[in-house]
Amino acid sequence: MSDATPIYLDCDTGIDDALALAYLLASPEVHLAGIGTVSGNTSATAAAENTLALLALAGREDIAVAVGAVDPLAATYRGGAPQVHGGNGIGGVTLEPAVARPDPRHAADMLIDLAKAHPGELRILALGPLTNLAVALEREPSLPDLVRDVVVMGGAALAPGNTTPVAEANIANDPEAAAAVLRADWDITLVPLDVTMEHVLDEQGRKRLLESPDPVARAVGEALESYLDFYLDIYGYRACALHDPLAATLLVGTVTATRAPHVPVVIDDSDGPGRGQTIADMRGQRRGPVDVPGARCQMVLETDLQVAPVLLDRLAGPPVA
Amino acid sequence: MSDATPIYLDCDTGIDDALALAYLLASPEVHLAGIGTVSGNTSATAAAENTLALLALAGREDIAVAVGAVDPLAATYRGGAPQVHGGNGIGGVTLEPAVARPDPRHAADMLIDLAKAHPGELRILALGPLTNLAVALEREPSLPDLVRDVVVMGGAALAPGNTTPVAEANIANDPEAAAAVLRADWDITLVPLDVTMEHVLDEQGRKRLLESPDPVARAVGEALESYLDFYLDIYGYRACALHDPLAATLLVGTVTATRAPHVPVVIDDSDGPGRGQTIADMRGQRRGPVDVPGARCQMVLETDLQVAPVLLDRLAGPPVA
Repeated sequence: MSDATPIYLDCDTGIDDALALAYLLASPEVHLAGIGTVSGNTSATAAAENTLALLALAGREDIAVAVGAVDPLAATYRGGAPQVHGGNGIGGVTLEPAVARPDPRHAADMLIDLAKAHPGELRILALGPLTNLAVALEREPSLPDLVRDVVVMGGAALAPGNTTPVAEANIANDPEAAAAVLRADWDITLVPLDVTMEHVLDEQGRKRLLESPDPVARAVGEALESYLDFYLDIYGYRACALHDPLAATLLVGTVTATRAPHVPVVIDDSDGPGRGQTIADMRGQRRGPVDVPGARCQMVLETDLQVAPVLLDRLAGPPVA
Repeated sequence: MSDATPIYLDCDTGIDDALALAYLLASPEVHLAGIGTVSGNTSATAAAENTLALLALAGREDIAVAVGAVDPLAATYRGGAPQVHGGNGIGGVTLEPAVARPDPRHAADMLIDLAKAHPGELRILALGPLTNLAVALEREPSLPDLVRDVVVMGGAALAPGNTTPVAEANIANDPEAAAAVLRADWDITLVPLDVTMEHVLDEQGRKRLLESPDPVARAVGEALESYLDFYLDIYGYRACALHDPLAATLLVGTVTATRAPHVPVVIDDSDGPGRGQTIADMRGQRRGPVDVPGARCQMVLETDLQVAPVLLDRLAGPPVA
């Protein structure tokens, strides 16, 4: 593992978080140095139990899981998205509870410790609301100097939102935290709905997960049963968006962004109707991607590959002809 | 003129307003019952002088022009867009000042009078900020019952804005007025940047206007000289967007919307970073245009024809082979 890139994963596991986790566990390019959980798809505590149970399935209880913020910075947790991710966050699938217990630290403190242990090397992959990252920035203002970069699944550049007409769930669940993270002086790759909605897994892909030799992949395959139902109205057939897995493969490097300009991004943390929007300045992009000088946020709009076959090849082996 | 549809035109003339006016004057389908001006591209008073001068060129000083609101509802007029429309609003072109003077009424009162004179028939074409319409709604709350419909050039559904990353100029110049107009109980057709930016006039088109038998068209052809320069960075060649003319042709019916769902639209009139945005709920539109039940605002996204040839055929005759 010595050459593998150390990763701090922040997640709200969550069905697509679980699929991203399965992929990261199967990826020798990266080393999961620690996992923090946050309320989003489900509560931070339930997300930690789900994550620990998935790690136990994988035989990877050596990876520390720390519970992070239950409430967003400026509000109270409102119960997640059971209509999307099931009552327990993973589609109602019952996993064997893990023996391992959460790390006693707050996820934000675990992140700070990892950043100090791997100065300039640690990469952050944030798949939920950005509360823990904002808390860590508050507790350790030099965090941006210690971290290599941040990859965030979240936001919408020109695509519609998913919780409001303009706001994506991870950002909308804690706009104040997202604003702090976007203001910080580090390189951010934002993986917004514009691109994640174009990457889907269908029933055939789910069947390949169910037949996988990987027990985590099989568990996610079961959890996907209800998740595909949720997306039926959106896509018109049983298929789900691969939000978090796309961010994971972009970080691992098995999928590459082919259109991803650096643009100014401001979070709407007002109380107006645009609250939770990632306001990206896309005005200069008409004739092709242009990096705006000084912008530290790279907005992923297109990739070289579809993520579903990339995921499935690693988690389930090549398709049966 | 007895079969022609009566129109109240509200404008901030403005180069593309002038082109729309030339088209409306050349269109037997409609009858310009009155014109009100508002501050936007230039001041309401300068817009009235420009409009009167263009009407004089056309020999149509019978059409009344009323000056409307100089200031937006909640702010002070800040000087228009001389970098786009020239210091005088029409690209620095000097027109013979009109002999006719503005109607003594406020534009909002002219609109109310016209609505009462043509109950259920009057159509409103708004090509500038919506201040006058909001003032008229305040002064005559039954206005929506008297008017057939409202066609507005303004806003952005999923396209970037043009004054901020998310706000289009007409809406951004008076968000409180736009909010009042969008809340009122009437049918609105919104012609946003998503579609107007796809309709351009190039240097060849400008030359046809310069050779037109129509003196208004020729004056606009001159005014377009600097306007095409402004758009050089945006399109990469000398061509301008036909924002206002597209709205005019859609109202006249010579161009037809082919994708234009009725969707909920809320104006961001907060003081947040999204101020001035037309927040359109486009979440249900992924699989094709779907009218949202109860929505009174039709968002034009695609049309059957390019507007430039439609304009030029009427204003300049068929192209020379």
